Amino acid sequence: MNDKAAIDFWFDFSSPYGYLMAEKIDAIAAKHGRQVKWHPVLLGVIFQATGSRPPADAVSSKGKYMLHDFARSARHMGIPYNPPSRFPLPTQNAARAYYWLHGQDCALARRFALAVYLGFFVDDLDISSPEIVLEIAAKIGVDRNSLATALQSPEIKARLKDECDAALKAGVFGSPHVIIDGEPFFGADRLPQIERWLETGGF
Amino acid sequence: MNDKAAIDFWFDFSSPYGYLMAEKIDAIAAKHGRQVKWHPVLLGVIFQATGSRPPADAVSSKGKYMLHDFARSARHMGIPYNPPSRFPLPTQNAARAYYWLHGQDCALARRFALAVYLGFFVDDLDISSPEIVLEIAAKIGVDRNSLATALQSPEIKARLKDECDAALKAGVFGSPHVIIDGEPFFGADRLPQIERWLETGGF
Repeated sequence: MNDKAAIDFWFDFSSPYGYLMAEKIDAIAAKHGRQVKWHPVLLGVIFQATGSRPPADAVSSKGKYMLHDFARSARHMGIPYNPPSRFPLPTQNAARAYYWLHGQDCALARRFALAVYLGFFVDDLDISSPEIVLEIAAKIGVDRNSLATALQSPEIKARLKDECDAALKAGVFGSPHVIIDGEPFFGADRLPQIERWLETGGF
Repeated sequence: MNDKAAIDFWFDFSSPYGYLMAEKIDAIAAKHGRQVKWHPVLLGVIFQATGSRPPADAVSSKGKYMLHDFARSARHMGIPYNPPSRFPLPTQNAARAYYWLHGQDCALARRFALAVYLGFFVDDLDISSPEIVLEIAAKIGVDRNSLATALQSPEIKARLKDECDAALKAGVFGSPHVIIDGEPFFGADRLPQIERWLETGGF
C-alpha cells in the first residue's frame, strides 16, 4: 500500500491545458508512488467566485495566442489535439457523470474522464450534450439508462457543487490545478516543477 | 556574421517572469546562432490597449499563487530572487534609460537592463525612481548627468511610446513575450518550447 498522500488534480473538461495534464499526471505520480485524485469542476463557477476570467477568446491577441499555444503545447508534449469547433463548452453533465461513476468504479471513472477529454479535444464531440456524455460512457461499458437517471439526481448535482466549493476552499482559480502535500501548481506547463517536487520533496 | 533573424524579446522591468527570461534568453539564442533584440515596454499601456489585466495582486487566490510561483520558478531555474517590497512599479524611467543607452552602446544597455532587474528582484530597489535608475546606470559607468538630461528628452519619451505601439502591433499582451521568426512565445515557462523551436526550426 501507498502511505504517501494522494495528489489532487482539479480541472474542467473544457480546459485544453487540463486535458494535457490529464494525459500525463497519473504516470508521473505513479513513478513516485503516488495516487492522483481527479476532481472535475466547473470553471464558470470558479471564475465567478474568484472574479477571474476565462483565459482565451477568439478575437483578442491573447485569445489568438492561446488557441495557438494549446496546439503547440500538445505537440510539444506528444499529445494528439484537434481544436474543437465549439469552445469552451459547459461541462456539468460530464462532471456529474464522472462523480456518479466514481461512486461505482474508480478505474472506470478515470477511463471515462480520459474518453471525454479525447472526445472533445480529438474527435470534436459536443461534450456539453447529455446524449454525447451517455454515448461516451456507453462505449466503455457503462449502463446508459442508469447513468441517464443519475445525471438528474439531486445527490450527484450536490456532489459537483460540493467539489466546486472544495476547489475554491483549496485556492483553485483555474484549470489544471494540481496540489501536492499543500503545494499548488497551476497549468500544464508546471509539469517539470511537479516532477522535480515529487523527486526531491520540495525545492 | 549571423544571417538568421534576431529574436525579439518584449518585457516590462516590473515583470518577475520577464526577469527570469532576461537571465536566460541571450545564452539560449547564442547557442543557436541568434541575436536577441530587447524591447522594454510598459505593461500598463499594453493592458489598457488589450483590455487585459495584471496577472497578480496580493489578495486573490490567483494573486497569492503567483507571488509564490515567482519565487519557486526562480528556484527551479536557478536564478536569485527576493520578492520586492513594492510591486509592481512604474518602469518608464528604466525603459527610457535603456533606449537612450542603446543608442550609445548596445552592450552597455544590455548590462544596464540586467542591472535594473537585479536591482528590483534581488536588491529590492525602487526602480520607479529616476534617482535609483541613475544610480544603477552610474555604477556600470554611465555618465549620470547625460542620462538625467536624456530621461527628459522628447525623443526618448517618443521612442518608448513607439516601442509600446510596436509591441501591440506585434501581438504582445504580456511580459515576457518572445517572437522567433513570427512565432510567439508568452511566459518564462515557454523556454523549453523556445529551445526546441530554435533547435528544430519549428515543431
